[in-house]
Amino acid sequence: MVRDLTALAYAAASIALLRLSSALILASKSPRRRQLLRQLGLSFIVIPSHVSELVPDSVTPERHVQRLALRKADAISRRRRSSLVLGADTIVVHRNRTIGKPGSVRDAARILRRLSGETHAVHTGIALTHRASGRRVAAAEVTQVTFGSLTDREIAAYVESGSPMDKAGAYGIQDEQGALFVQRINGDFYTVVGLPLRRLYLTLKQHYPDFLVA
Amino acid sequence: MVRDLTALAYAAASIALLRLSSALILASKSPRRRQLLRQLGLSFIVIPSHVSELVPDSVTPERHVQRLALRKADAISRRRRSSLVLGADTIVVHRNRTIGKPGSVRDAARILRRLSGETHAVHTGIALTHRASGRRVAAAEVTQVTFGSLTDREIAAYVESGSPMDKAGAYGIQDEQGALFVQRINGDFYTVVGLPLRRLYLTLKQHYPDFLVA
Repeated sequence: MVRDLTALAYAAASIALLRLSSALILASKSPRRRQLLRQLGLSFIVIPSHVSELVPDSVTPERHVQRLALRKADAISRRRRSSLVLGADTIVVHRNRTIGKPGSVRDAARILRRLSGETHAVHTGIALTHRASGRRVAAAEVTQVTFGSLTDREIAAYVESGSPMDKAGAYGIQDEQGALFVQRINGDFYTVVGLPLRRLYLTLKQHYPDFLVA
Repeated sequence: MVRDLTALAYAAASIALLRLSSALILASKSPRRRQLLRQLGLSFIVIPSHVSELVPDSVTPERHVQRLALRKADAISRRRRSSLVLGADTIVVHRNRTIGKPGSVRDAARILRRLSGETHAVHTGIALTHRASGRRVAAAEVTQVTFGSLTDREIAAYVESGSPMDKAGAYGIQDEQGALFVQRINGDFYTVVGLPLRRLYLTLKQHYPDFLVA
């Protein structure tokens, strides 16, 4: 009886918690962010923005990722005034040093050796901008990630898979092998993947209720 | 140049960190566990085992999940003596009370109301058995999960989606809406989904090196 109800509910899975009255623009080319937005069942289009990623060293990681997320969203908002635009930025910080995307295969291996057996922080900022109504909102989340001790063979196999190359910190917590390296996290999981889903949801509810379908 | 190398590496994504010399048997009918094993690139077959899930109340959650994981693996190992069998069990504990799968839609809503704004623990046990060599190994992980405050509307929408019905604790941290409810976790993410991937990997390396392809 209950099983039948469940099956029915699954079939009619149109009841989404989060629905927008118009398509969102994702100002990022990250395939992970795209997949997470899809997971939420949101309709959106992707228009990557090309902005300078330079931020003064004196800026804290928390402000760094919000500033870049805003820069990315603003760049698209200028051209699409009536659209809601989502920008995001992720950086990895280990012992007060920011670790970006690896520049080469050797660099990826070097980064992974550094993170091995250590805890680092993943900061992700999001920005939601809507030029027509003059709204510009940013928020950030941070999650601590502890790696297990990695062997040279494990690092080599992961680097050879190619997966580390387009990722800040040279790993993806959600990919085949990245998942094996992470011992524990403290914070929001999706922040590590590149888009803090609950924070996005709360920001939409707070600042863009007019875009939500009740 | 680097980009081309990366593309090549992606194309030849046959370099897996974790490969087994023979197919594993997953003694669980959970679609999440199946998906996680697939994510690792492991080859396996599914033979759900039907065992009693009764465990005395006096048993700690950590032992509870290991005992049931072993029970599930043993049930299959008896019939498939030369196969490596993986069993797993997950329970949710909130304020010293164990929360299982919801028995009804109303029960699911009641569970979610209880977890709202609170921290609970998700325990997952795994067992790897191989009857031919007499090996029986179990391990467990625990992850703390903190929910945000949920509104009645959010709970109703999630319950109506049907997703909570087959899950201990009435939510899936990886599904569309479950992801929106979780504020933070402390521990391994995959333990909450139902299979601690790094623990599985370490257990295989330690106790079943003869099954790993170097």
